[in-house]
Amino acid sequence: MISSKKMIHATPKQIRLLIRRGKWDKPTAGVAMGYAQANLAILPERYAFDFLLFCQRNPKPCPLIEVLEPGKFQTDFLAPGADIRTDIPKYNVYLKGKLEKTVKEINSLWRNDFVTFLLGCSFSFEEALLRAKIPVRHIEENKNVPMYVTNIACRPAGTMHGPMVVSMRPLPPDKIVRATQITSRYAAVHGSPVHIGDPSKIGIKNLGRPDFGDPVTIYKGEVPVFWACGVTPQAVVMEAKPDLCVTHLPGHMFVSDILNEELATL
Amino acid sequence: MISSKKMIHATPKQIRLLIRRGKWDKPTAGVAMGYAQANLAILPERYAFDFLLFCQRNPKPCPLIEVLEPGKFQTDFLAPGADIRTDIPKYNVYLKGKLEKTVKEINSLWRNDFVTFLLGCSFSFEEALLRAKIPVRHIEENKNVPMYVTNIACRPAGTMHGPMVVSMRPLPPDKIVRATQITSRYAAVHGSPVHIGDPSKIGIKNLGRPDFGDPVTIYKGEVPVFWACGVTPQAVVMEAKPDLCVTHLPGHMFVSDILNEELATL
Repeated sequence: MISSKKMIHATPKQIRLLIRRGKWDKPTAGVAMGYAQANLAILPERYAFDFLLFCQRNPKPCPLIEVLEPGKFQTDFLAPGADIRTDIPKYNVYLKGKLEKTVKEINSLWRNDFVTFLLGCSFSFEEALLRAKIPVRHIEENKNVPMYVTNIACRPAGTMHGPMVVSMRPLPPDKIVRATQITSRYAAVHGSPVHIGDPSKIGIKNLGRPDFGDPVTIYKGEVPVFWACGVTPQAVVMEAKPDLCVTHLPGHMFVSDILNEELATL
Repeated sequence: MISSKKMIHATPKQIRLLIRRGKWDKPTAGVAMGYAQANLAILPERYAFDFLLFCQRNPKPCPLIEVLEPGKFQTDFLAPGADIRTDIPKYNVYLKGKLEKTVKEINSLWRNDFVTFLLGCSFSFEEALLRAKIPVRHIEENKNVPMYVTNIACRPAGTMHGPMVVSMRPLPPDKIVRATQITSRYAAVHGSPVHIGDPSKIGIKNLGRPDFGDPVTIYKGEVPVFWACGVTPQAVVMEAKPDLCVTHLPGHMFVSDILNEELATL
């Protein structure tokens, strides 16, 4: 396997081809810097309206960047010609809300009634944080970002309901305002933080034991800052229990051809 | 009928009750200043996914603020307990893309498979413009805002496709940058302009003959500034020709309990 550091300057297409050929199955944090990465959720058509409505009602955890019509597996907007069945490092397959298996491609699972949702990912604003000299701990430590299921309820929609999942980055207090300003520009990739400080206020008991991803070092005096996370759909799937749902494995994202700056709103 | 000027400081609820009782059937521009107004589109459930996807792909003309589950006619987010069947001054009923009639309530038309979409309206950012001493001509002239069908194609979604409709406000050149900055804050109500200047570049032949609303005075040296408009769904309905669609009559909006400032993104 190639190291993540070598792939900082790779093009999204190079990375997607490595993934398609089975040569990259690691987290995508820090690769192809500058380009937006996306979370994946695939559902049968009968759940698609409810899920689309859920995203509309919960834009911070579920900022839709592209939705494909039923049966369509090639993206238009995020990367013309990319194949959603093969171009993501690892997929989680859920049956009735339970993780059934993790696989490297979903060609054999594909159905004509599958609707694909691609959602903005917080990795995308990390580049902007780094450019402003704001530390991003899990990149420093070459880990997957720590993610936590909170007690913040998403607004339900039809059959879809569940808690918000957040990602966490520890920051020195003098960097928090600037980090809030910077990420506010990127509403399409989760935008501003949802919580700053005491993890227990949002139902997180132990920062050292994330529900997804890896724990990171929090230095003395640093404050945990929480952003809504695109893994939220997986928590929703676990609660709403649709017959079938395919997602990415957390941290293992779809790398798009769209620059983060193209998604910035101001 | 009550004059619009008297209703500037009315509450949204007072206005909705006047409308419900048939005592207000005029445009809502300038009433209950400070509160968000919304465009309406109601479609049978079988069109709902396509239309929701159309809005996701065209957020400037179709910024969704609230979508109700099939059969639901009371709003939650925009105004708890408001009745979508009676609380809008006038409704347009389209059959297969043709305007069939304009009515003052839709109780008798209502069906359990109707899905209601409420979209942000440019009236909402006019308050912010006025507060910054930027003139809003159609309010000055007590008219409905002029709206035009352009040659800008929306991104299609399933069965839904059509041109973007824009609203126009003439501005002195030294107010254009500020007006762009101010409206950029309000992505949920169309946001920044889509075009500044020459109307022919976006397929508008005669500013004096708007497709919807009223023409307004353009003083010497003023520049027409165009914002995406929530009447776009009506243009889409005319092209996509769903069996049935109910919208508001342009300019005659749903007046919500949500402050414009609550919708501002920055």
